[in-house]
Amino acid sequence: MTPGAMLSTLRERKPLVHQITNYVVMNETANVTLAIGALPVMAHAAEEVEEMASHAGALVLNIGTLSLDWVDSMVLAGKAANRAGVPVVLDPVGVGATSLRTDSARRILGEVEVAVVRGNPAETAALAGIEAQIRGVESIGAAAEGAELARGAARQIGTTVSVTGVTDFVSDGERTVAVRNGDALLATITGSGCMSSAMTGCFLAVERSVEAAAAALAAFGVAGEDAARDAKGPGTFHANLYDALYNLTPETLDERVRISEA
Amino acid sequence: MTPGAMLSTLRERKPLVHQITNYVVMNETANVTLAIGALPVMAHAAEEVEEMASHAGALVLNIGTLSLDWVDSMVLAGKAANRAGVPVVLDPVGVGATSLRTDSARRILGEVEVAVVRGNPAETAALAGIEAQIRGVESIGAAAEGAELARGAARQIGTTVSVTGVTDFVSDGERTVAVRNGDALLATITGSGCMSSAMTGCFLAVERSVEAAAAALAAFGVAGEDAARDAKGPGTFHANLYDALYNLTPETLDERVRISEA
Amino acid sequence: MTPGAMLSTLRERKPLVHQITNYVVMNETANVTLAIGALPVMAHAAEEVEEMASHAGALVLNIGTLSLDWVDSMVLAGKAANRAGVPVVLDPVGVGATSLRTDSARRILGEVEVAVVRGNPAETAALAGIEAQIRGVESIGAAAEGAELARGAARQIGTTVSVTGVTDFVSDGERTVAVRNGDALLATITGSGCMSSAMTGCFLAVERSVEAAAAALAAFGVAGEDAARDAKGPGTFHANLYDALYNLTPETLDERVRISEA
Repeated sequence: MTPGAMLSTLRERKPLVHQITNYVVMNETANVTLAIGALPVMAHAAEEVEEMASHAGALVLNIGTLSLDWVDSMVLAGKAANRAGVPVVLDPVGVGATSLRTDSARRILGEVEVAVVRGNPAETAALAGIEAQIRGVESIGAAAEGAELARGAARQIGTTVSVTGVTDFVSDGERTVAVRNGDALLATITGSGCMSSAMTGCFLAVERSVEAAAAALAAFGVAGEDAARDAKGPGTFHANLYDALYNLTPETLDERVRISEA
Repeated sequence: MTPGAMLSTLRERKPLVHQITNYVVMNETANVTLAIGALPVMAHAAEEVEEMASHAGALVLNIGTLSLDWVDSMVLAGKAANRAGVPVVLDPVGVGATSLRTDSARRILGEVEVAVVRGNPAETAALAGIEAQIRGVESIGAAAEGAELARGAARQIGTTVSVTGVTDFVSDGERTVAVRNGDALLATITGSGCMSSAMTGCFLAVERSVEAAAAALAAFGVAGEDAARDAKGPGTFHANLYDALYNLTPETLDERVRISEA
Repeated sequence: MTPGAMLSTLRERKPLVHQITNYVVMNETANVTLAIGALPVMAHAAEEVEEMASHAGALVLNIGTLSLDWVDSMVLAGKAANRAGVPVVLDPVGVGATSLRTDSARRILGEVEVAVVRGNPAETAALAGIEAQIRGVESIGAAAEGAELARGAARQIGTTVSVTGVTDFVSDGERTVAVRNGDALLATITGSGCMSSAMTGCFLAVERSVEAAAAALAAFGVAGEDAARDAKGPGTFHANLYDALYNLTPETLDERVRISEA
């Protein structure tokens, strides 16, 4: 399927995307999910996450404002998703910044079969045990060897890995693709990484593949390019971003997508 | 009082609207409350909810991202509101999607005297024990028999019920009114239902009646119509919505309101 | 250093600003932090706050949606910040509205060496034990004697105090300055006070002084003036505000700042 065909299918099926995510971006990732055409649901209570996850089209776990009980719920939800054949996305926000984050992300990877890890270069490197520097949750510095990092992390972690930055790289350890869509303004709003993880969940609900993970990032990047056009800064860009996701057509996506082997 | 007169009174009195609501929409419902002219306060700790609720003009309970301890706080706050004569609104987000949600909403209704339940058709039907289908928290499908659903649910639950959709219906089991304001873009942003529950709290602080519950939905709908005018999608619509609520005058509201017996 | 020079330094150093804040404004204060040029991180788990705070350039504690365990984390983080020489800002949201808020703010002040308390007149008065009236978290009424309140509260509490309103006042008990930047639309969006506390954290990371606390408020106020220019209400103002912070230059700030002795 082309990225555009995946987007068409997504809008027909309107998959439910269950997200256990951080307090900072819940509204934003819910709105991204709605704007692209899927249905978001946020639910974190241990008493309901298994029921919710097993009915979902995808499950997105994001440790941005983690606490021990939320991580317990993520594991419960992840296992239920696994049993039901629902793909799981992990966003390891801030891994490397504190041991709690590193330990929690590794615990989730140990107990849940994760389909895609979506992180920035520093988080991905820290998670895979590759040398890296991270400051808080906003990583600084480009991944000069992004393709290599994605490939190495995918092999190390044993999942498909999406490393996002100026260029995004998606690898399952064998195939690696580069996604060259996006705009610098994406780095000026909080949660753009979390939003790309939510997008990944939406597209995995359609097809579980390196192509779908890359298509999600391309669709988000093309919307970012459109949103930047009339933006005067991060605030108007942010509002425009939802408009652009909502107005993105399958045809436009297929025309503008810049995915290539890496 | 006409809807416009209620809006005038609301802006004069600036009632405090205490909200125990979900993480996804807290910022949004607080901003809606401010934009229409009331004062929002979010507080959920068991140690302070009774004190806060008893000083409020209305209390809004919303189970969108519930957990057991938050539901405990909602019950505490609700009982304190009841003792102080403060009207309580319940938004049963996602009831029907998991048993935790259904059980929690019913527990609140059992322990707290709720003035208005505001939900979508699927949530309302599930809460009232009428057959319905719900996917996550975004219900799919129109309420062909919205008026009937509102009336039946009001009788079943024993409160006034607002069922929102393309047309909204408000019923206390005897009188039923239809509200035909709004715009399709409201369904493209997360939390528009939660916002209409916050609006309901604001108007109930002025007057506890079917008319006030309907006026809240009409005011929100008229603002939605205004917000849609220059919107290019959900993002600009969302920003415009606060502008429209803020700029809505009592005169405009009375001219444009479309409330009728149903 | 002039306010503009502080802003230059901030953008060069990109300090990490650790925020333990309320659910309502997390996205907003993170975006303000990014827009002005610093790096936000939100982390509240007891297991990681000490590690995170000790690596930060500043720590901002905000009790807007407090619970007992979050206050415990604030104290842990505050003590770690103190040990590491990291300046701490306290935003005593809603102090005076419930005893939990008053007690919690006083507990933090008792256990943590706070560099700046940033509140509205009612919160500041309540915290300092001066007679005041507060309704929820949005205080009503102007601080006729704002300079006096800031000075008295600073002496009483033993920290620098920023009291924000139509005119802002910053005092360490000896020197008191007035900041006359800003726009009335700031009062129409939720979290503008919380945002000014986040700004205070960003500037304190550059220099710990009355001047830096005042520069933070001036920068936020100038951005508010710019944001108001094309705004049609609170929604467009809110989006414009991030644009204005992002586009604010050190030169513009130095030209437009209105700080004077009070």
